[in-house]
Amino acid sequence: MKTDSNDTIFGKIIRGEIPCNKAYEDEKILAFHDIAPQAPVHVLVIPKKHIEDLRSASTEDVELLGYLNLKIGEIAEGLGLKEGGYRVIQNNGPDSGQEVPHLHFHILGGETLGPLNHSVT
Amino acid sequence: MKTDSNDTIFGKIIRGEIPCNKAYEDEKILAFHDIAPQAPVHVLVIPKKHIEDLRSASTEDVELLGYLNLKIGEIAEGLGLKEGGYRVIQNNGPDSGQEVPHLHFHILGGETLGPLNHSVT
Repeated sequence: MKTDSNDTIFGKIIRGEIPCNKAYEDEKILAFHDIAPQAPVHVLVIPKKHIEDLRSASTEDVELLGYLNLKIGEIAEGLGLKEGGYRVIQNNGPDSGQEVPHLHFHILGGETLGPLNHSVT
Repeated sequence: MKTDSNDTIFGKIIRGEIPCNKAYEDEKILAFHDIAPQAPVHVLVIPKKHIEDLRSASTEDVELLGYLNLKIGEIAEGLGLKEGGYRVIQNNGPDSGQEVPHLHFHILGGETLGPLNHSVT
């Protein structure tokens, strides 16, 4: 695990230096509730390996990325979102509003979600 | 490829029965510009295999899902979005507003994107 050099807030959460409201954890990934939820259910799913975002992912990350996506479905089901459905959002870089440079997938659900993009410009 | 039984509009696009403005294609995936773009750049990336959404994905899809995620990064870079960044959105079921029951990832970019969720309820 390349978590040693990860000084982001998510690196600190992975190492237990900052607490989180955990939804799921295994040796490869961690899921926890967002502290500023944008929907009734808002959970973040992150790899323990430090990857900044999809722009810096490489072929060696293919299995981890696939595993993450499959687990998102299982975690969402565990959160009671299977029947109603949910949205997965993953931000990369300045235009997206990415706040933490550690790959993360938002799971949003529990209500009828808004449009794909509510333009601010 | 389980595309034979896929009667969604995306199945028809994969088979070439409906035209699309293609951004990328290989033996596993297809990317094309959304006909109703929600941002200056709005491209859909889909697997050729018919998977309804993440709720119906299985362990046999892990490699395909990882490949899709990695390719999203490459496709976004090809669209000129690497520096400015982009958002990836993937909808599952009624609350998310998923319109086509064939797994698809939206790539949105080319402007400062709006909030993660602009609640409509």
